[in-house]
Amino acid sequence: MTESAYDPTTYEPLTFHDAAERFRLGEDSPSDYLERCLATVEKREPAVQAFAHLNPVLARESAAASSQRWATGNPLSPIDGMPIGIKDLLETKDMPTEFGCEAWRGNFPNRDNAAVWALRQAGAVILGKTVTAELGGSHPGPTTNPFDPTRSPGGSSSGSAAAVAARMLPAAIGSQVGGSIIRPAGYCGNVALKPSQGGINRGERQATSMSTHGVHAGCIEDMWQVAIEIVKRAGGDRGWPGIQGPETTPAPHKPARLIVLETEGWANLDESSKQGFAALLDQLRDQGVETLGRRDSRLVESLECAIADAGRVCNSITNWENRWATRNLVDLHPEGVSERARAALAHAESMSVDDYRAALLARDLAQQAHAAVAAAADAIITLSCPGPAHVWLGDQPGEPLAPLPTGSPVFNFPSSMLFAPAVTMPLISVGRMPVGVQVFGQQGQDAAMTSIARWMLESVSPVVIA
Amino acid sequence: MTESAYDPTTYEPLTFHDAAERFRLGEDSPSDYLERCLATVEKREPAVQAFAHLNPVLARESAAASSQRWATGNPLSPIDGMPIGIKDLLETKDMPTEFGCEAWRGNFPNRDNAAVWALRQAGAVILGKTVTAELGGSHPGPTTNPFDPTRSPGGSSSGSAAAVAARMLPAAIGSQVGGSIIRPAGYCGNVALKPSQGGINRGERQATSMSTHGVHAGCIEDMWQVAIEIVKRAGGDRGWPGIQGPETTPAPHKPARLIVLETEGWANLDESSKQGFAALLDQLRDQGVETLGRRDSRLVESLECAIADAGRVCNSITNWENRWATRNLVDLHPEGVSERARAALAHAESMSVDDYRAALLARDLAQQAHAAVAAAADAIITLSCPGPAHVWLGDQPGEPLAPLPTGSPVFNFPSSMLFAPAVTMPLISVGRMPVGVQVFGQQGQDAAMTSIARWMLESVSPVVIA
Repeated sequence: MTESAYDPTTYEPLTFHDAAERFRLGEDSPSDYLERCLATVEKREPAVQAFAHLNPVLARESAAASSQRWATGNPLSPIDGMPIGIKDLLETKDMPTEFGCEAWRGNFPNRDNAAVWALRQAGAVILGKTVTAELGGSHPGPTTNPFDPTRSPGGSSSGSAAAVAARMLPAAIGSQVGGSIIRPAGYCGNVALKPSQGGINRGERQATSMSTHGVHAGCIEDMWQVAIEIVKRAGGDRGWPGIQGPETTPAPHKPARLIVLETEGWANLDESSKQGFAALLDQLRDQGVETLGRRDSRLVESLECAIADAGRVCNSITNWENRWATRNLVDLHPEGVSERARAALAHAESMSVDDYRAALLARDLAQQAHAAVAAAADAIITLSCPGPAHVWLGDQPGEPLAPLPTGSPVFNFPSSMLFAPAVTMPLISVGRMPVGVQVFGQQGQDAAMTSIARWMLESVSPVVIA
Repeated sequence: MTESAYDPTTYEPLTFHDAAERFRLGEDSPSDYLERCLATVEKREPAVQAFAHLNPVLARESAAASSQRWATGNPLSPIDGMPIGIKDLLETKDMPTEFGCEAWRGNFPNRDNAAVWALRQAGAVILGKTVTAELGGSHPGPTTNPFDPTRSPGGSSSGSAAAVAARMLPAAIGSQVGGSIIRPAGYCGNVALKPSQGGINRGERQATSMSTHGVHAGCIEDMWQVAIEIVKRAGGDRGWPGIQGPETTPAPHKPARLIVLETEGWANLDESSKQGFAALLDQLRDQGVETLGRRDSRLVESLECAIADAGRVCNSITNWENRWATRNLVDLHPEGVSERARAALAHAESMSVDDYRAALLARDLAQQAHAAVAAAADAIITLSCPGPAHVWLGDQPGEPLAPLPTGSPVFNFPSSMLFAPAVTMPLISVGRMPVGVQVFGQQGQDAAMTSIARWMLESVSPVVIA
């Protein structure tokens, strides 16, 4: 395994679920596990810059308590002792919460987001806050891609994706409103879950009507376990039932049929990624999985049409919903908010209530088009990101702002606007960089998507395109 | 008109919509209007205690600017210059926001809630913050009922209801999760709107899945105009279209048929209020309005059954959703949170995720039962409060805490859990105290309910029971 290029056939992610047996036998302990993470942090963090804040002192205390529980046979949960990172949009009572935004520098709210509270109840070791693009938008933080420091890790859950990819942590919490979990996970070779809308309690975090908390992990077992341990304790968002499913990772399930969705992103996708995706689909068909595309089905074509304008619809909804929070922030701290965030505000302030209503209607109609394909296949499959992560060396003084410095959410808007549970898998590499592939399903099918992803991870060989 | 007893046949509410013509003619001005309000505040506030914070300096500046606009024929909206109160759960950039809670004393967030922002854009004069029961719950503030200082004004929008009733303000913003707008408005003789769920943008205010902002006013014209001016500018909640309807008060509409709902509250209602409500229904029938009760219709009986346990369902949902915010607050300020709020937290912390899911399911089923009566009548009619406001002299040292010091939301849980738009009208008095009557309808029928209420206010004589 090298640290500066990605090879899916040799890359070994950091995992936690398989440590339990060693903890039980006394061959390993959460304290030792944490020390190994800290050693990796020391080595990788100077280049990767995944953390907005690290808290090794409290993490060591927490790991010591967990070690004690494992030693006496009383772990609080299967993730007791798991070192975990929290995206810096979520409040934590013992660390700052700065939203990747200058205007929030030093913000210390002294309270835990509901999901963080649940993780602590489950015994998880909160090691640090991971870098978020400013306010969860597109203005990037300092994080680099662990497989190539000249490239973007994606965003806005940049630090969560990169910390897991660099093996500094087995799991980290991210959040997505457009493409902020699945895309960086795709660029960084994570497994990740963007749950059904409302799947994980967002608690006190101010958020929009289509944002969710989710989980980045090195393997699907850790991904599911983290999600379900949170939901067992803190449930879903207010008004939603939250993720429902088994107490441990759902069994692998081979889908009979998958819908292949092109999305808005297809037209501009590089040929190598198209080739990689085609080879992956060939493998699935070789194993007897049927595939269904827009040219095979009127219903799939209707869904493609319903999401053809997804980017505009999603940005309109999100910008409008963030309008007042951002306006208040800009009024108080005119210099503390990036030009990119101010552009999103300007867009919001050019909208009327009816523009917003029209965007909501487009989202509703797309959800109906998605519901209409429920019986046609077990899941939808598509890429998680528009090819491998692009080179990003920062904004250049005097130059116009680069568009989409953390990459385009063009493959992510659909599952976001459809409120669909999505799981990304590191099943393609292009030019020695990861390219994620996702499956997504109907609202509430978080466990079913996890089962299908688990089968794919166990049954499909990663496709390597030079 | 006396100030210490209520007579609906002589009580003259403070109104604003009819001042516009005088502003235009130069016979009156927003500054003069404000001075009259301030004079009333000086006289009534020592007993009523409706305000958590008053800001006469900024209000006078704002009224002077508005006077200038009216003088030059350029008002920003029909409510330009209207003095208005903001329930102290909503953030205001120029006043503290203390949530009626000791732990939040001095909290000064420096930002405007989206609804407050919209009111300022419309030229409204924000005169002060009105008292809320602690955290919008049941622990009362100091406000008294303007028609009898020994009695409760209701809650949690205690100050908004009382300030309007005492003619200190023509309108005030309230909010409801269980019964916090309609009940105090009913006890205080206001007209008030609790919109459809999502009807008015709650913005940055952390809130539960069934809370709404709403409007207390002296008359239905001001009620509607305030609501629609907010929604024109800030829309509804994230994910909701917001109140839809005409730019000025919807025309009166005589309903052909009304469903009479008993609700959980009927069994314990005093005989005088029952008598008053019966007399009101007789008047409606005399005017040709049909009524339909649980003994007349299987569908109405199904709805009654679906809401029979509304109090337990609503409290479970709300306590669970407030759980993490309250836990964080109690951990930080153990002495700054009332025993009543801590009891609600204890209830939440005794619940499992499945308990919460079961409560959501009960709410969903009740909404289906409500949808099933949509074709059976134009609206539902029921009382707004369980009779006239009760005597409340405060908690007595050494005594157990009185239950429900701001009154029981037993007549309000249904419209809250059904996400239904509700309008209360001061159409009954019992023992020289107001008893509100409400109509409520299907989700989205805010304008239709306003039309029916307007017809009732114009066509029905208030019922006076000694």
